[in-house]
Amino acid sequence: MSSRQSSSGLAFFREMMAGRVPPPPMVSTLGLRMVEAEEGRVVFAGTATEAFYNGWGVAHGGFAATLLDSALTCAINTTAAAGRTFTTLELKVNYTRPLRREVGEVRCEARVIHVGGRVATAEGRIVGSDGKIYAHATTTCILVDTDREAAEGKARV
Amino acid sequence: MSSRQSSSGLAFFREMMAGRVPPPPMVSTLGLRMVEAEEGRVVFAGTATEAFYNGWGVAHGGFAATLLDSALTCAINTTAAAGRTFTTLELKVNYTRPLRREVGEVRCEARVIHVGGRVATAEGRIVGSDGKIYAHATTTCILVDTDREAAEGKARV
Amino acid sequence: MSSRQSSSGLAFFREMMAGRVPPPPMVSTLGLRMVEAEEGRVVFAGTATEAFYNGWGVAHGGFAATLLDSALTCAINTTAAAGRTFTTLELKVNYTRPLRREVGEVRCEARVIHVGGRVATAEGRIVGSDGKIYAHATTTCILVDTDREAAEGKARV
Amino acid sequence: MSSRQSSSGLAFFREMMAGRVPPPPMVSTLGLRMVEAEEGRVVFAGTATEAFYNGWGVAHGGFAATLLDSALTCAINTTAAAGRTFTTLELKVNYTRPLRREVGEVRCEARVIHVGGRVATAEGRIVGSDGKIYAHATTTCILVDTDREAAEGKARV
Repeated sequence: MSSRQSSSGLAFFREMMAGRVPPPPMVSTLGLRMVEAEEGRVVFAGTATEAFYNGWGVAHGGFAATLLDSALTCAINTTAAAGRTFTTLELKVNYTRPLRREVGEVRCEARVIHVGGRVATAEGRIVGSDGKIYAHATTTCILVDTDREAAEGKARV
Repeated sequence: MSSRQSSSGLAFFREMMAGRVPPPPMVSTLGLRMVEAEEGRVVFAGTATEAFYNGWGVAHGGFAATLLDSALTCAINTTAAAGRTFTTLELKVNYTRPLRREVGEVRCEARVIHVGGRVATAEGRIVGSDGKIYAHATTTCILVDTDREAAEGKARV
Repeated sequence: MSSRQSSSGLAFFREMMAGRVPPPPMVSTLGLRMVEAEEGRVVFAGTATEAFYNGWGVAHGGFAATLLDSALTCAINTTAAAGRTFTTLELKVNYTRPLRREVGEVRCEARVIHVGGRVATAEGRIVGSDGKIYAHATTTCILVDTDREAAEGKARV
Repeated sequence: MSSRQSSSGLAFFREMMAGRVPPPPMVSTLGLRMVEAEEGRVVFAGTATEAFYNGWGVAHGGFAATLLDSALTCAINTTAAAGRTFTTLELKVNYTRPLRREVGEVRCEARVIHVGGRVATAEGRIVGSDGKIYAHATTTCILVDTDREAAEGKARV
C-alpha cells in the first residue's frame, strides 16, 4: 500500500481515488470524497445532509469549511514530493448562499495560487449543479519536512 | 418548548444547555457542546477524537473551524432579540498547534468585538487544559430579520 | 460633473478614468490609478516606490492592502446603481513575494465573485510585468443605500 | 546607530521611539508613529486626515490596514532576536465604523497570540479616544533568518 512517506502528494491522491488507500477519517465522517486531482488542482464532492445542519435548517458553516480546507490543502499537496507535506496555517471562508440537502451534491474545486519554498496559497469554491457559488475560501499552508514530523507534531509552526 | 421565534438568543442557549432544546445536528455530529453563555460571550467544549482526524493523525482543520464557527456565531447571537438571528458571512481561522485526542477536551471561548445595526464581529480561541492555544478565529455575521427567512433562505445576503 | 448620486458605479469610474472626476485622495497619495473597468471587473496600476517601503527595503504590507482594497471594492461597485454603494466589511490579503520599485508598475486585477441583495464578495491579485503574483486578496462588502448615508456615516454596519 | 542586524526587535523599536532611528517610510507617509512597545505588545497612533480618504469622505480601508499591519507585525517582532525578523504572510482586517479626521488621533494596540519556531500570529484593534472600535485585524507572520535575506528578498516564502 502506498504511503505519503514513499509517494508524492499527487500519486498518493490517485491511489486514494482508486480506493487503494482510505480517505482521512474526517472526510469520511462528513461523507466527502476527492473526485479529481492533477498538478495544482483538485475537486472534492459532498452533500449537505441534515446531520451537518446548524439550528436554522441549513448546513453549518463547519461543513463548507471542512470541504474547502480538504480541497485547498490537497490542491497544494499535489505539488509536494514524497516525505513532504503542507499543513494549514490559516483558512478564510466566505459564505455566499445557504446550503441544504436539496441542492444535491456540490463540487469544491480548488487551485493553487502560489507555491514557494516554504509557504503556499490556494483558493477554491463550492458550486452546485445549478452553477451557483455557495462558499469560497483561500488558505495559507506551510511546508513540513517529513510525514513523521507531522504525525508526531514535532515540526511545529 | 422554546424556539428562537419566541426566545432571545441568550434565553434559547440557556434552554439548550439545560437540555430542553436539542443542539444543532452538526454540533452533535462532532460531539461538541455549549457549556457557558452570557451576554456577548459563550464557551463550547469538544474533543478531537480519531473520527475527526485528517490523514496525518491530527484533527482536520474542519474540526477547529466547526468548533470556532459555532462559538463565534453563538457569542454574537447572545445579543439577538427573539425572531432575529445573525448568520455567518465569513470566518477566518488560524491553526497554531496540532490537535489530537490526547490533548483531551478543549474549550473554545468566543467574545463579541462589535455589534452594529446590521453586522457583528467576534473572536475566539481553542485552548487546552494545558493553557495552550490550538487555533483562533474571527468572524463577520449579518443580521437576518426572522427565523423563518433564515430557514427558508429568503433573506439572502 | 458626474457624482455617484446620479451615476452608476461603472459610469462614475469611466468618468474618473477619463479625468473628469478626481480619484479618491488615498489613491492619489499612493500614486495608484484605475486603468480598466467593466461590469464586475476593474484593474488598478501602481508602483511600489520608496515612500511606501517598510523598514526592510520592500513595500509595506499597507501598500498592497490599499491597492487591493481599491480594486476589489471598485470591482464590486461596478455593479452598483446610482445612489448606492458597497463599503468594505473585511479584507484579507496574502503576501506571496516582496514588492520593490525595481518590479516596476504592477497591475491589480479584481473580479466579483458574488453579488447578492445586501452583500458582495470579490477577489484580486497584484501581478508584475513578469507575470509573478506579489499579493492576492478577497473581500466582503455590504450595500449602503445612499451616498449621503455613507458620507455622513449614518448607515452604520 | 542601532540596526536590526545587531539589535533585537524590542531594542530597535525603543531606539525608534527615542528618535535615534527613523521610522519606516510608509509609516511616515501616513503620519503614523509607534508610541509604546514591550514584549509581545505595541501601540501605534495616527490620524485619518483627508489625504487618506476614499471617495466617500471617510478613511480608505488602506489607512486602517497599514496602521494594523504596522502594529501587528511589530508586536510579533518585539519577540525577535537580533538578525531575525518576522514578515507578514497574511493580514485580515475587519472594518466596524467609518473613520474620519474628526475622530482625532486613534490608537492601534496589537498583541501577540502565538509565537512558534517558524510562525507567529497577532491581533489588534484601532480604538478612538471615545473608546469605540473602528477596525480590528489578525495576522500570520513567518520568521526570516537574517536581515540581509529580508532586504534582498532571498528568503522567499
